[in-house]
Amino acid sequence: MTDNQIKNDSITRQEDDFAQWYTDVCKKAELMDYSSTKGFIIYRPYGYAIWENIQAYLDKRFKETGHQNVYMPMVIPESLFNKEKEHVEGFAPETLIASEGGGEKIDDRLIIRPTSETLFCEHYAKILKSYRDLPLLYNQWCSVVRWEKTTRPFLRGSEFLWQEGHTLHETEQEARHEALSILDIYDDLGRDLLAIPFSKGIKTDKEKFAGALETYSLESLNPDGKALQCGTTHYFGTGFAKAFDISYQGRDGKIYNPHQTSWGVSTRLLGSIIMMHGDDNGLVLPPYVAPIQVVIIPVAQNKEGVLNEAKKIEEQLKRADFKVKLDDSDHTAGWKFAEYEMKGVPVRIEIGPRDIEHNVVTAVKRNDGVKLTLSRDTLVDDLTKLLKQIHDEMYKKALDFQVSHTYEVHTFDELKEVMDNNKGYAKAMWCGDPDCEAKIKEVTSATARVLPFNQIPCDDKCVVCGKKADKVVLFAKAY
Amino acid sequence: MTDNQIKNDSITRQEDDFAQWYTDVCKKAELMDYSSTKGFIIYRPYGYAIWENIQAYLDKRFKETGHQNVYMPMVIPESLFNKEKEHVEGFAPETLIASEGGGEKIDDRLIIRPTSETLFCEHYAKILKSYRDLPLLYNQWCSVVRWEKTTRPFLRGSEFLWQEGHTLHETEQEARHEALSILDIYDDLGRDLLAIPFSKGIKTDKEKFAGALETYSLESLNPDGKALQCGTTHYFGTGFAKAFDISYQGRDGKIYNPHQTSWGVSTRLLGSIIMMHGDDNGLVLPPYVAPIQVVIIPVAQNKEGVLNEAKKIEEQLKRADFKVKLDDSDHTAGWKFAEYEMKGVPVRIEIGPRDIEHNVVTAVKRNDGVKLTLSRDTLVDDLTKLLKQIHDEMYKKALDFQVSHTYEVHTFDELKEVMDNNKGYAKAMWCGDPDCEAKIKEVTSATARVLPFNQIPCDDKCVVCGKKADKVVLFAKAY
Repeated sequence: MTDNQIKNDSITRQEDDFAQWYTDVCKKAELMDYSSTKGFIIYRPYGYAIWENIQAYLDKRFKETGHQNVYMPMVIPESLFNKEKEHVEGFAPETLIASEGGGEKIDDRLIIRPTSETLFCEHYAKILKSYRDLPLLYNQWCSVVRWEKTTRPFLRGSEFLWQEGHTLHETEQEARHEALSILDIYDDLGRDLLAIPFSKGIKTDKEKFAGALETYSLESLNPDGKALQCGTTHYFGTGFAKAFDISYQGRDGKIYNPHQTSWGVSTRLLGSIIMMHGDDNGLVLPPYVAPIQVVIIPVAQNKEGVLNEAKKIEEQLKRADFKVKLDDSDHTAGWKFAEYEMKGVPVRIEIGPRDIEHNVVTAVKRNDGVKLTLSRDTLVDDLTKLLKQIHDEMYKKALDFQVSHTYEVHTFDELKEVMDNNKGYAKAMWCGDPDCEAKIKEVTSATARVLPFNQIPCDDKCVVCGKKADKVVLFAKAY
Repeated sequence: MTDNQIKNDSITRQEDDFAQWYTDVCKKAELMDYSSTKGFIIYRPYGYAIWENIQAYLDKRFKETGHQNVYMPMVIPESLFNKEKEHVEGFAPETLIASEGGGEKIDDRLIIRPTSETLFCEHYAKILKSYRDLPLLYNQWCSVVRWEKTTRPFLRGSEFLWQEGHTLHETEQEARHEALSILDIYDDLGRDLLAIPFSKGIKTDKEKFAGALETYSLESLNPDGKALQCGTTHYFGTGFAKAFDISYQGRDGKIYNPHQTSWGVSTRLLGSIIMMHGDDNGLVLPPYVAPIQVVIIPVAQNKEGVLNEAKKIEEQLKRADFKVKLDDSDHTAGWKFAEYEMKGVPVRIEIGPRDIEHNVVTAVKRNDGVKLTLSRDTLVDDLTKLLKQIHDEMYKKALDFQVSHTYEVHTFDELKEVMDNNKGYAKAMWCGDPDCEAKIKEVTSATARVLPFNQIPCDDKCVVCGKKADKVVLFAKAY
């Protein structure tokens, strides 16, 4: 077996089986591995580093906008968890429950947090006194557990990493503004870091978060025609506040319940990156979220001076703050090419005796395979521009796909045809009746992904019942 | 009740009850709060921000030395946990166990991780193939659960935050070097950030980590005369590797088990900071770990120009990268003084009409209450120097305490006298017999904290049995 085969032999092609291709990439690019507990994956260094880059971006944005990090317990007593009715019903079927500690039975059993609304509420009830304490803008980075029967790496797992924001406000307006502002930060993350254009909008009542009055969502449309919910923010009204006795003395001296939000994105974003950009050679990472932006591969590295020059370039790029790796291991150059293709490194630099002679390097773009010759004299500037160019190309490709795979449909049959062929979004009018929504799911297995903020009607009749309709909905199959 | 009283009324004095003073500070400085599950605390923003500063320092150092972050599952199947005998015996009594998921009984019950050696080992067994893969240098930031009967904020809890490093090496020498290098990084953290001088050394067999061949430790000596174990690194030999079938093909083509280490520090460090530096007015934070380094308090802030000048100073200090807060709330200046004293902010800047007139500010050092008048023209430079000075003073004070509270003892009675009066360390000679060590614990409740690296004998006879002894040990009571 050659070095090359070791890397690429066993990847399924996208067109043969997209789901299997996805799992292959997750494993072969060393993003994750399975543990011995079903649904609990290991986030390997290369995958975790992508998450750290997402964290760094969001944490900075959250702090700039006045949010503070906290850490709540990972367990929730069952009695506390049961306080908000809709919330319980939403999460109870997938909880992991501990009932023995230090060899003794625990009477009020402990739920391993699936989400922490109840814990934040209990704490808020203790610390909130006056309107002066508002807004309370808290965020937490942690992992949560949801006991899932069917699991897929990053997309649906029994444990995943995420951030969960929980905030309290004086007015509905402020709380809704918070939920929408955070959605904008998530949207910026997609545009600036992940090269993913999101569809933004409101969830239907059926699809919203357990206990929320309104759920805002970001969805990505992937090459297999399915949509992925990538981030949500929720406006809770005063429902949780009332259930948990959270109140404060207002400006007029009277007692009020605060308006509440929560919001989160998770390691599911890694799934979105993989699917949106990957190809049959593996991962393709957008430059600004990639753990390695530039890999340097010496060609004929045993020839005098080659390794030395490669190291000089490495030093130069490090000083210029590129995330750079020089692979001077004793693998063949062919093995290395395949390895970093699989890992989706945006730019590969090859440096050999002829390059040195001509004072150039050869640069290969991972996203389209284009080869460039770059002068050593302008390398830093050229690479800076090249990374930006790659990012923009990847974003545009994803956006073009989204636009070209959004189909305006006017009849149920048209909608069904889009779904049966996994073509992408069906943009359709909906009367608002949950029965019509349910029928679509029953027949096509597609769900209402969002009512996009940008409501441009394409008809005036409900795609299901034909009655008058003024709601524009994006329907798609989801994971 | 005045504003001032609200803050300081209910703090116990250190000399009245050190333990109660400690708990009071944890609560009143808003570092933590209790949740409804015993031993599971809430890390409030001010406390969590200190932990984030510690994380940032260590994460940078770990990465600079080639370590990579990963994330392992938070659950360990009981069957996996039981693979390494000594390890199981060490942790089994304090495990939290989940046995129901998604409404169904889990046959191989899940232990909420108390530490992740077993998970890392299982993963290593799968990914390690060749000597080329070594060293494997992994670290994880997470929380762990140990079901404790007696708990104290940060010092001993059922859930705490930490980092756990787990590494594999070709040789014993490399693995021991790793364990000692990391100990140096922890020691630097104490010196550079926490202003805490640690006593470094080796644990006795009785005190070492379950499953380790050798445990290295850092201890701090606190004003109540007790020692706190602040960080440990462990050399495991090949014991875990054998139990978990971790092996690799060596340079000579033969199969070997790698040598292993693990190491960690936790939010217990917050406890160390609080106790080491705090006083009867609350927390005293070392400048380089403080979430707020400088608080600006306008005096007579309703007077024209005062708030404006205060904001100018805030902007100036922010630009110079100080962690600065301007408190322009409608609390009284007195309330604010007490508030930021309680929170241990290293420098308070007061700015009033007279200061503005003379182009100065008044700066008050939290660590000793000294008041300074600083010119506005040299403010940034003066504050930079002042923070450094405060850090150095705090470190020196802690070191002086440690030195002056380390007592060379030659007889068991002398040792007992030190312990009975909670004076600090007893430096004593020990023959190495576990029975002698056990007798000290039984009679005085003190334990062997470390055999310091710096072994300067103070006698040639064991402090217990009187037989020939060449081991220098620091004994102390611990938390």
